[in-house]
Amino acid sequence: MSHTIKEKSRLLARVRRIRGQVEAVERALEAELGCADVLQLVASVRGAMNGLTVELIEDHMRHHVVDPATEPDRERARGASELLDVIRTYLK
Amino acid sequence: MSHTIKEKSRLLARVRRIRGQVEAVERALEAELGCADVLQLVASVRGAMNGLTVELIEDHMRHHVVDPATEPDRERARGASELLDVIRTYLK
Amino acid sequence: MSHTIKEKSRLLARVRRIRGQVEAVERALEAELGCADVLQLVASVRGAMNGLTVELIEDHMRHHVVDPATEPDRERARGASELLDVIRTYLK
Amino acid sequence: MSHTIKEKSRLLARVRRIRGQVEAVERALEAELGCADVLQLVASVRGAMNGLTVELIEDHMRHHVVDPATEPDRERARGASELLDVIRTYLK
Repeated sequence: MSHTIKEKSRLLARVRRIRGQVEAVERALEAELGCADVLQLVASVRGAMNGLTVELIEDHMRHHVVDPATEPDRERARGASELLDVIRTYLK
Repeated sequence: MSHTIKEKSRLLARVRRIRGQVEAVERALEAELGCADVLQLVASVRGAMNGLTVELIEDHMRHHVVDPATEPDRERARGASELLDVIRTYLK
Repeated sequence: MSHTIKEKSRLLARVRRIRGQVEAVERALEAELGCADVLQLVASVRGAMNGLTVELIEDHMRHHVVDPATEPDRERARGASELLDVIRTYLK
Repeated sequence: MSHTIKEKSRLLARVRRIRGQVEAVERALEAELGCADVLQLVASVRGAMNGLTVELIEDHMRHHVVDPATEPDRERARGASELLDVIRTYLK
C-alpha cells in the first residue's frame, strides 16, 4: 500500500471508529433495544463504510493510477479528478 | 426488541462476524496490504451489513407490523411478504 | 394496485420525469457530451429512481399491509411508521 | 466524449433499453398493476442503470485517465484495472 504515514493513520482512525459503531450495534442487540434503533445504528455504520470506501479509492487513484494534483498530463489529471467526483456522487 | 432468543443469538452471531471482518480491515491497513485487497475486504463488510439489515427488517416486520406466516388477514399477509421480497431485492 | 387517483397521477408524473431524464442521457450521448457530464445525468436518474421506489413502497405499505395513519392497533401503526423511516434512510 | 463509434452505439443501445423499461413502469402504473410487480420493474431499471454507470466509468477511465490495455507504465495499468474491479464490485 506504501501510502504516507498520515494517510495510514487517518484510515486506521476511520476503521477504529467503524469498529466502535459495530460494537454499539452488538451492545444494542444484547440490551434488546428496539429494532428501529438498532436499524438506525446499522445505517450509520453503512454511511461510515461508504466514507471509508471513498477515501480508500481516492488514495488508490492517487498512489497507483493518476494523482490529479501532481500529474503533468493535464487531460489525465482532469479525467482522474472527474472520476473521483463521480465516485463520491455514487458512494456518498 | 422482545424477539425470540433464537433470533437474538443469530443476529449477535452476524454482528460478531462483521466485527471480525472490520478487524481484518484494520489488520490489513496496519500491514499495509495493497489498496485493492483492502477495498475488497471493505466490500465484503458492506455485503455482510446488507445481510444484517435485511434480517433486522424482517424481524421488525414480523414482530411489530405483520407476520406473513401467522397473520389471519390474508391480503395483509401477502402484502407484507411482497414488501419483504422487494426489500431483499433492493438491499441484497 | 387500486390506489387513489391522486397517488396514481403523482406516481405517473414522477415516472414521466424519469423518462425525460433518461431521454436527456440519450441526447447527451448522441451529442457526445463529456463522460463526466453524462455520468452526472445518470446519477440524477438513479436519485429519481430511489425517490420513486420509496414512494411505491410507502403506497404498498399503506394499501396492502398497515397504514400508520389509520391503523387502530397502535403498536402496529408505530412499527409500520418506523419501518418506513428505516427504508427512507436506506434508499434516499 | 470522443469515444469510438462502437462504444457510442453500445451505450445508446443500453440507454434505449432503459427508456423502454421506464416506459414499461409507466404502462404498469396506468394499468394499475400490483405494487409488488411495479416495484420489481423499478428494481430492474435500477439494475440496468448500474450496468450503464459501470460501462460509462470504464469508458471514461480508458479514454481520459489510464487504459489498462495500452498503458506502458505497468504499475499504472494494474492500478487502473484494480480500480475498475472495485467499482464493478460496488456498483453491480
